[in-house]
Amino acid sequence: MPATDHEWSDGLLEAGLGDAEVAAVVGWTARVRRMVEVEAALGRALAGAGVIPDGAGDAITRACDPERLDLDVLARRAARSATPVIPLVAALAEQAEPLAAAWLHHGATSQDVVDTATVLQLREALALLDRRLADAADHAAELARRHRDTVMAGRTLGQQAVPTTFGLLAARWLGALARRREQLAVLRTRVLVVQLGGSVGTRAVWADRADAVVEALAGELQLAVPDLPWHAERDRIAELAGALSAVAAVVGTVATDLVLLAQSELGEVAEGAGEGPGSSAMPHKRNPVHATAARAAARLAQGECSLLLQATAGHELERAAGAWQAEWVALPSALVRTTGAVTRLGAALQGLEVDPARMRANLAANLGLTGSEALATVLSPALGRVDAQALVGELAARAATQRRALAEVAAQDERVRAVLALDELTAALDPTAVVAQVAPLVDRALAAYARPRPTPEVP
Amino acid sequence: MPATDHEWSDGLLEAGLGDAEVAAVVGWTARVRRMVEVEAALGRALAGAGVIPDGAGDAITRACDPERLDLDVLARRAARSATPVIPLVAALAEQAEPLAAAWLHHGATSQDVVDTATVLQLREALALLDRRLADAADHAAELARRHRDTVMAGRTLGQQAVPTTFGLLAARWLGALARRREQLAVLRTRVLVVQLGGSVGTRAVWADRADAVVEALAGELQLAVPDLPWHAERDRIAELAGALSAVAAVVGTVATDLVLLAQSELGEVAEGAGEGPGSSAMPHKRNPVHATAARAAARLAQGECSLLLQATAGHELERAAGAWQAEWVALPSALVRTTGAVTRLGAALQGLEVDPARMRANLAANLGLTGSEALATVLSPALGRVDAQALVGELAARAATQRRALAEVAAQDERVRAVLALDELTAALDPTAVVAQVAPLVDRALAAYARPRPTPEVP
Amino acid sequence: MPATDHEWSDGLLEAGLGDAEVAAVVGWTARVRRMVEVEAALGRALAGAGVIPDGAGDAITRACDPERLDLDVLARRAARSATPVIPLVAALAEQAEPLAAAWLHHGATSQDVVDTATVLQLREALALLDRRLADAADHAAELARRHRDTVMAGRTLGQQAVPTTFGLLAARWLGALARRREQLAVLRTRVLVVQLGGSVGTRAVWADRADAVVEALAGELQLAVPDLPWHAERDRIAELAGALSAVAAVVGTVATDLVLLAQSELGEVAEGAGEGPGSSAMPHKRNPVHATAARAAARLAQGECSLLLQATAGHELERAAGAWQAEWVALPSALVRTTGAVTRLGAALQGLEVDPARMRANLAANLGLTGSEALATVLSPALGRVDAQALVGELAARAATQRRALAEVAAQDERVRAVLALDELTAALDPTAVVAQVAPLVDRALAAYARPRPTPEVP
Amino acid sequence: MPATDHEWSDGLLEAGLGDAEVAAVVGWTARVRRMVEVEAALGRALAGAGVIPDGAGDAITRACDPERLDLDVLARRAARSATPVIPLVAALAEQAEPLAAAWLHHGATSQDVVDTATVLQLREALALLDRRLADAADHAAELARRHRDTVMAGRTLGQQAVPTTFGLLAARWLGALARRREQLAVLRTRVLVVQLGGSVGTRAVWADRADAVVEALAGELQLAVPDLPWHAERDRIAELAGALSAVAAVVGTVATDLVLLAQSELGEVAEGAGEGPGSSAMPHKRNPVHATAARAAARLAQGECSLLLQATAGHELERAAGAWQAEWVALPSALVRTTGAVTRLGAALQGLEVDPARMRANLAANLGLTGSEALATVLSPALGRVDAQALVGELAARAATQRRALAEVAAQDERVRAVLALDELTAALDPTAVVAQVAPLVDRALAAYARPRPTPEVP
Repeated sequence: MPATDHEWSDGLLEAGLGDAEVAAVVGWTARVRRMVEVEAALGRALAGAGVIPDGAGDAITRACDPERLDLDVLARRAARSATPVIPLVAALAEQAEPLAAAWLHHGATSQDVVDTATVLQLREALALLDRRLADAADHAAELARRHRDTVMAGRTLGQQAVPTTFGLLAARWLGALARRREQLAVLRTRVLVVQLGGSVGTRAVWADRADAVVEALAGELQLAVPDLPWHAERDRIAELAGALSAVAAVVGTVATDLVLLAQSELGEVAEGAGEGPGSSAMPHKRNPVHATAARAAARLAQGECSLLLQATAGHELERAAGAWQAEWVALPSALVRTTGAVTRLGAALQGLEVDPARMRANLAANLGLTGSEALATVLSPALGRVDAQALVGELAARAATQRRALAEVAAQDERVRAVLALDELTAALDPTAVVAQVAPLVDRALAAYARPRPTPEVP
Repeated sequence: MPATDHEWSDGLLEAGLGDAEVAAVVGWTARVRRMVEVEAALGRALAGAGVIPDGAGDAITRACDPERLDLDVLARRAARSATPVIPLVAALAEQAEPLAAAWLHHGATSQDVVDTATVLQLREALALLDRRLADAADHAAELARRHRDTVMAGRTLGQQAVPTTFGLLAARWLGALARRREQLAVLRTRVLVVQLGGSVGTRAVWADRADAVVEALAGELQLAVPDLPWHAERDRIAELAGALSAVAAVVGTVATDLVLLAQSELGEVAEGAGEGPGSSAMPHKRNPVHATAARAAARLAQGECSLLLQATAGHELERAAGAWQAEWVALPSALVRTTGAVTRLGAALQGLEVDPARMRANLAANLGLTGSEALATVLSPALGRVDAQALVGELAARAATQRRALAEVAAQDERVRAVLALDELTAALDPTAVVAQVAPLVDRALAAYARPRPTPEVP
Repeated sequence: MPATDHEWSDGLLEAGLGDAEVAAVVGWTARVRRMVEVEAALGRALAGAGVIPDGAGDAITRACDPERLDLDVLARRAARSATPVIPLVAALAEQAEPLAAAWLHHGATSQDVVDTATVLQLREALALLDRRLADAADHAAELARRHRDTVMAGRTLGQQAVPTTFGLLAARWLGALARRREQLAVLRTRVLVVQLGGSVGTRAVWADRADAVVEALAGELQLAVPDLPWHAERDRIAELAGALSAVAAVVGTVATDLVLLAQSELGEVAEGAGEGPGSSAMPHKRNPVHATAARAAARLAQGECSLLLQATAGHELERAAGAWQAEWVALPSALVRTTGAVTRLGAALQGLEVDPARMRANLAANLGLTGSEALATVLSPALGRVDAQALVGELAARAATQRRALAEVAAQDERVRAVLALDELTAALDPTAVVAQVAPLVDRALAAYARPRPTPEVP
Repeated sequence: MPATDHEWSDGLLEAGLGDAEVAAVVGWTARVRRMVEVEAALGRALAGAGVIPDGAGDAITRACDPERLDLDVLARRAARSATPVIPLVAALAEQAEPLAAAWLHHGATSQDVVDTATVLQLREALALLDRRLADAADHAAELARRHRDTVMAGRTLGQQAVPTTFGLLAARWLGALARRREQLAVLRTRVLVVQLGGSVGTRAVWADRADAVVEALAGELQLAVPDLPWHAERDRIAELAGALSAVAAVVGTVATDLVLLAQSELGEVAEGAGEGPGSSAMPHKRNPVHATAARAAARLAQGECSLLLQATAGHELERAAGAWQAEWVALPSALVRTTGAVTRLGAALQGLEVDPARMRANLAANLGLTGSEALATVLSPALGRVDAQALVGELAARAATQRRALAEVAAQDERVRAVLALDELTAALDPTAVVAQVAPLVDRALAAYARPRPTPEVP
């Protein structure tokens, strides 16, 4: 059992609750690489803007080779410094040509490097998250399409209410997933900006070349230029955390629906088989493994997002003593957890087995009481709405007490038969008729989803 | 001491931590009024769409008179029902003409009424919040304009670092406030939509007139039509909660800056006088009362927003058993707390007294050590950056140990004097020179703020 | 519709999510009364300790008449001061005899009064919470007793697993409720302490009579004396918030179980009738109204408790600028919400209708597959455990595929019949046999609950 | 740069925000070891209780060799199963003797193994946390002892109020740390219990040997026996999460005090030197590195604890589909973050440099206005308290306006001099006199801390 001896693993990936690809992109190792990339790009930007000597930019680029860093040593030093950038710059300088050592990190502050590196990580992570969301949305759309007319019980507070369709349910999931992609797309334009301000945001060292340096760095890294340095204004991070939490909330809702519909007594959906044994002691169980993991990951994600939102409120003056440092951990963690939740939801939706017969049977097993509303509706013109509802209430109570189908009880009631012929009664209680208005809604949602959506471009 | 006997007051307004105007708009009493308004509008919409008899719409409108409701009785019944709409409709029907009683609430479900009423409350509350944010932003802009060139110490981790200007700090506050207004403006278009789906979102009772009913209701209430009913997809609420939390985070950050700058030992800002006694026992104290309240309210707001975000993850199938009901309280509370935070921040910024002399003095009292970076910069061309930094480090240490100004220590150092004339040295250490790049940034931010911004319109 | 015009009601009580009795005890009006009570007690304590003149204590007591205060005026002034105590003392002094006016609040600070008044509110609220918890525990115990041997399906991840009893489930609920009472009892001794330290906790004004004053005040109010003033060490409040959140967590768990078991397709429990109409449109529905409210309130409570826990981390030096003020609102709110959750859970448990026949039927409807584990157990001695499990897995799969009862499939399998006689097979699959070990567990839990428990006394 | 390729590191340890020793104890690798340990102990317990054949216990113990497991393979399989125990048992069985393979994990469920392993991890982690808390408390006690009489300004809302001592501040920190150790000690007895119930808590497979098995397992692992299985009653975990959050809150408060007192303009404390460079660009800065990290870690910890508290509310019936799985990650993370916060706080306190001269100077720089309360107190007997306070208010305002010391202004006021001789005035304004009551408080707190405290023993 070769164990990790200096790394900390809380089990997020091992338990399948985090997205491994995002983890690789936003983790500590990736961050060090990204910080090195930022230092290199800064070197070229400074040279391009004429702030540092010709040749220094290239020398710095050569010095910024992450392969030569010893991450363990770096971590040990970082934990004792105010930021990891101090030992990083020292380590890069140690093995650099003199010209590079002299001008590396010139005029920048640690936060410039950490924050811009983080934005680079974010760009990659958000692209992955969007892809996962698109996958999950595709699966939801496919379910909506396939089960456009599959009748099932609508349930409020856990009680069968009136019939709906599985297509509508899937379309609602789709709508929520699509809206979250939209929010993330808008947000991307606000968040993917360079941070470069020097010690306290005044960009003092670069004098009148400051604008040129910032623009050159943004150009190097393909990021946008912000109106002002944002070292202590973390509202962009807050907006992101809110958006991630909303994504996780959608996952939580959909996965909860799946767990509920998969209960033994409902049995209306099941996760695809082929996922290995459910339970050695209980071979008959078919656990909603992916949906369970999605719910767990969504919880974990929302907790981290709340933390992140609250940390953004604590940035003092020109640099926070605690709130910023908490972001270092909470932001990657929030991204890995949120994307992990979406990934597992996608897996649950992808292989979902839907059982229309069981859905019908569950409606029937409830004595057809979900037809109460429809029955009252067809009785209303003749009896008046109030009397119609009172009569249906009486019939429903009788059906429940005698454990007989509402259709049967109604058919034997003279007041009903005085108004409705038997075939009219049957038609009124047919769940398919009840959901007649639903299919166009689903079609419309699917059409809206198919429509190409302009994605805001990042420079 | 006439006390409230049946109302619950947790002290939010009494302690000045909530916005009273928003409270009036989103509170329980207002909600009941809004629900009655929705029932009336639904009556007209149903009549307009030809679902209910001619005349029923008007009769329902006449029946929907909130003045005739007994709120106490309603509350007692609501607490025993699954929703407050059931007793509300019963109460309205009791005193209505038969035609109104027969068709009131026809085909709708409680959640349609509660959610649409909530959206109406939201519209009003968001308008008030935007106004408060605009006020606070105006005050920040005025401070940035007035103190565009006011030099102060930039502080990282509580330590004086290098000089900055109060104008830049205020411009950063302005930027954050303005960005939050932008997010809220975008969000408004997504959130201010009608909810109308009937029992489980299938709109069954209105048959082929369903689209017409929904559009008519939206028209009556001047809200947008959503793609699908959203009774259990609360991601719009999640997006709102995230946006409110981001607003509160900005308030927290700015108010923290104010509290820090107002500390006795810094004394760089003070809240406007005329706010009554600070402390009877300590008449000399000038407490940052508004900023303190703003921080408290922001904390309260963020807590409620986190709760709200998490509640949106818990909506089961066609109606949640718990998560939705928690929203009834958490959403108004989040709005009152968030706006309260902004209101108090606005008050703190409006009367803010800024002391430029004290800012200068604080820089000086720190031995001018904030000039270290600038000194190293001017020494770099001659000495090389590494040697220049080492030399400045040595001088700064000497200054700190001997409690002498860096300028004086540097002036007496031969290595410095070999490179810099005394007037060059003085110029380099002049904080005004150090912040030369800052004023254009501030001007740009002010210009961006002044530029009229298109506000997305709600139909 | 007479509305509250200056009070803020977020709907907590109107929606039945808060405990009205606790609200009356911890609300703002009660706080003002309690602050007046503390001022009176302090006057007597100061006189008793010889710090202020003879007669001043009585005069202060006479002056401290809450009935003479105008709460509206007080609230308006409080919102502009750093604390509500400043205008309160001014208002009391205005109408007091000179001797009282001269010595009222002598040597105390606002926080002494607010915090000690809060502790008095806490004592009352915690007593009410304990009573509600005891009620809920009693109902759980009664259910455990009555259904000690009622067999039902045990469900993991929503899937029927193996049989259990409703008695065990209720006993588990009981255990959790009882443990939370224990935590609150221990905590009470740590939390119900007087706060009295003067401006910054040094008790300077009372000179060498300080200990005597603190002890006299504690004696007047029947509170304990803390080791040190705790104005900025809020870990007691944090401990309380954690304990309240744990209570709410228990409520959330139990109420979730109730909502799940009450689902139409399970129908194993239902909340007592007589609670008014469920749904006008759907007369057949029997909504779990109390359990739903309990879940909502528990969510609201946990959110406020998290906020409170985090606020306790933000107290700066001798008084917090924000974190303390947030407590003013969050602490009463947390108490009202938590107790509200317990109250509604108690109501749900009290009238709970349990349907043992439906429990049996649900087991049967699952084809008796919950007997798989038991079947494997009885086959193991002869076949070996691995082969026995493999065989049962095969049988269970066949039963599921063919929708036949496991008992029937097993009875027709030669490998089974080679080992087990038919009556042995039937006995092994009888759920009653499977739960044979459970009743003693339930008995033990009930006995432990009945045993009188020493409640730590508060001086 | 050799990177971690399959492990996920969010930077917690690399940034020095987590406790590495606790991470090693509660991480995933340690959990797998602990699960293997539980399986082995269960084997011996089953054999000892006579449930499985003689020899099977020893064979199982031999099979349970963590060194033979391939963690990567295990993680891949775990992510696809409902729990990691299923592939773990399979992997152990693969290479076991037949007798071990036949009886491994007999009658247990995955949750028994995960939860009991977690409790074993908890025991070790809580011991480490307690040691860190004891270290921090020792450092606080040492500071209180050494600075028992060191006068400093007491500050409320950031404003100098009246004098206090650094000894009292440190004693208050000590008190809070000591109380948290007490809560953890009490909690330990409730939390360190075995979980063993079989599939749904009924312990069915072990028949009438169930009690014996549970007791034997508890004996093997030196854990307590709970009243009932607690698979779905997570209130113990909630209590723990609340306690950890309270610990983190104390860290946050103390670390915030340190950051504030270390500000350039206050300069009353500084973290010990020898911690490497503060800032390459600003060599004069002495950043509060440990306190900053402690604040960051405390934030991270409290966020995870809130998540954990909320997850404990979501356990459905006999096993949660999401809430339990979230605990797998959140609980170790909460422990590593909380302990990390304490560790960094200990480091900050250990090397803390306190500057009594600067404390005095800060009092003086505020014009001695912190003497206002004391001056009013000595004037009260002659002038009456109300007039005395009014007079002092006038003098303080004059001092502030004219930037002259209060002592000087008072000495020149005839009304003061009519009552007080110059030496009486000087004595009254001497901060040392003002804090006369404080030293005994500090002594008492130190004595209470020194007193040996009984630690509840775990069987």
